[in-house]
Amino acid sequence: MQTGCLELGNFQTQSGELLQDARLSYETHGELNADKSNAIVYPTWYAGTHEDNRGAIGVGKALDPERYFIIVPDMFCNGLSSSPSNTKPPQDRGRFPSITPYDNVIAQHRLCSEHFGLEQLQLVVGFSMSAQQAFHWAALFPEMVKAIAPICGTSKTSPHNLLFLEGIKRALTADASWANGDYVDPPENGLRAFTTAYASWAFSQTFYREGLHLTIGGQHFDSMTEFLEFFHGIFARHDANNLLGMLETWQLADVSNHAKFGGDWHAALSSITCPAIVLPSRTDLYFPPEDNEVEVAMMPSAELRIIPSVYGHAAGFPGLSTAEDDEFIDDALRELLSQS
Amino acid sequence: MQTGCLELGNFQTQSGELLQDARLSYETHGELNADKSNAIVYPTWYAGTHEDNRGAIGVGKALDPERYFIIVPDMFCNGLSSSPSNTKPPQDRGRFPSITPYDNVIAQHRLCSEHFGLEQLQLVVGFSMSAQQAFHWAALFPEMVKAIAPICGTSKTSPHNLLFLEGIKRALTADASWANGDYVDPPENGLRAFTTAYASWAFSQTFYREGLHLTIGGQHFDSMTEFLEFFHGIFARHDANNLLGMLETWQLADVSNHAKFGGDWHAALSSITCPAIVLPSRTDLYFPPEDNEVEVAMMPSAELRIIPSVYGHAAGFPGLSTAEDDEFIDDALRELLSQS
Repeated sequence: MQTGCLELGNFQTQSGELLQDARLSYETHGELNADKSNAIVYPTWYAGTHEDNRGAIGVGKALDPERYFIIVPDMFCNGLSSSPSNTKPPQDRGRFPSITPYDNVIAQHRLCSEHFGLEQLQLVVGFSMSAQQAFHWAALFPEMVKAIAPICGTSKTSPHNLLFLEGIKRALTADASWANGDYVDPPENGLRAFTTAYASWAFSQTFYREGLHLTIGGQHFDSMTEFLEFFHGIFARHDANNLLGMLETWQLADVSNHAKFGGDWHAALSSITCPAIVLPSRTDLYFPPEDNEVEVAMMPSAELRIIPSVYGHAAGFPGLSTAEDDEFIDDALRELLSQS
Repeated sequence: MQTGCLELGNFQTQSGELLQDARLSYETHGELNADKSNAIVYPTWYAGTHEDNRGAIGVGKALDPERYFIIVPDMFCNGLSSSPSNTKPPQDRGRFPSITPYDNVIAQHRLCSEHFGLEQLQLVVGFSMSAQQAFHWAALFPEMVKAIAPICGTSKTSPHNLLFLEGIKRALTADASWANGDYVDPPENGLRAFTTAYASWAFSQTFYREGLHLTIGGQHFDSMTEFLEFFHGIFARHDANNLLGMLETWQLADVSNHAKFGGDWHAALSSITCPAIVLPSRTDLYFPPEDNEVEVAMMPSAELRIIPSVYGHAAGFPGLSTAEDDEFIDDALRELLSQS
């Protein structure tokens, strides 16, 4: 396990703005083999860092560091790669450029090709926003990506998902102490509103009905309030501008948003010819299976495989739901890796 | 069609507090027959007034004013019955007492028995919070209620539903200009956050995917922004303290929260022996069918009949979704009325 940081120089974003002195943080697991044929990319997701991906990586798992060289690039705005919180004026805080999933994927591609000298990836796997990046990877670099496994994520943020995000964004920014990103102290009331509203989306109705929030992640909570405190912590470790930056990337997710496709969603998806297993959770409230169903129908070599979980979106977060959910996903990854 | 207002005097609420000079506003449709055997109660729902119920009432519909005497009592906190906005100090604004569904139902019972001299109701029908009141009616006054039809609502607010409400409440109150209810001007940013977050819950993912928000209610919107403006208006006509008061009633909904049942949910539901058709929408995100399924299993004479709609919760709002949804509901009401 090794962390690193690639200096990208002045990085051209899709917004048109040059991101000054851009940097891409990452962690790797395992060793690259001699013919460079064992690399996997597994990006980070919303409010995550490379540390959160570790739950899916380990000896005996599909993402086995004894067999594969697994690269976990940190998304822009996550506080480790270039972010509102760590960028100098005039691009600091609320003035940080808009970042798209393609911006992330293009930076990650430089890491893979220029830094590691890779010409192929056995698999790009991702959860949530990271699943969105997997779709973008396969569409933009089809000669390089041999398989993808998008878990609980879509190739394009749906209108409903976009609205859910708009709601939690407005909850955060309704707090005047946010001050358009120039807050002195973190906007506490806004952040609380944000995480409370988020909590109602991140898990299913049945998850809460069955009281599973009280024992999530092997923990024990006595009340909804205690659980919410835990959930709040997942986000509150991030700077509010970073949260808003990643949220904007999510809202901008669209695999067809590239000159190669000119906004043609069907063209972008049908260009993904590598094997794909698309893994929504049956009870995901913002990336519901129906959204993936539409996509898989446009992809020549894709299979829809629904995770039979009551954990909602969290079914795809490694180590957070159940061993069965993790195993269900691992089986799909093994299947793809055995073919690629 | 006639409106009225019953003076309740000092009204004992379940919170222990006496609501001073309480009043219950209502509208009636049709005429009470000689033997007083044609009365129906159809309470209002969240952010609604008796005007919103009119969409389900009319000649030729199940709720036909030529056959039935239909009473539409306004919920406390809706701005017409006693509410934070129309009550004198010291119970004004944020100091208005907590109101439960039973408080509403007990006041409505007085309207029916003391004012109209009714001994039986052919039907109590309700949508959303009004469905919750229907459950409460049948449990507390079983000798009086001959049938109930709860549409898109439960007998007890589920943990997930409660959390959804907590999220939108915090979105509203994150705006410091709310000032614990003593705002000078309406807390605009908080209200915008509230309605934006609410919009993502009120309809289904498929509803938005199919662009149905652009033509809802026979209207035409060019964009999500225009639709949100319309949706905002439904709530923004209400005082913010009234919105929070009704929200608290919703969070407190629990058919077993009465001395008669002592918190025993099973006892309360199994005491509902009248015929009931419970009508969730297949795609309701906060009153999902699974919540009603659990309830119907405890009710001796209840049937679960799922509205096959993609409109989410809004499937039960008369005139807002489709003629098919309205007809599906009307058929169930006709069936109950033909038996009772």
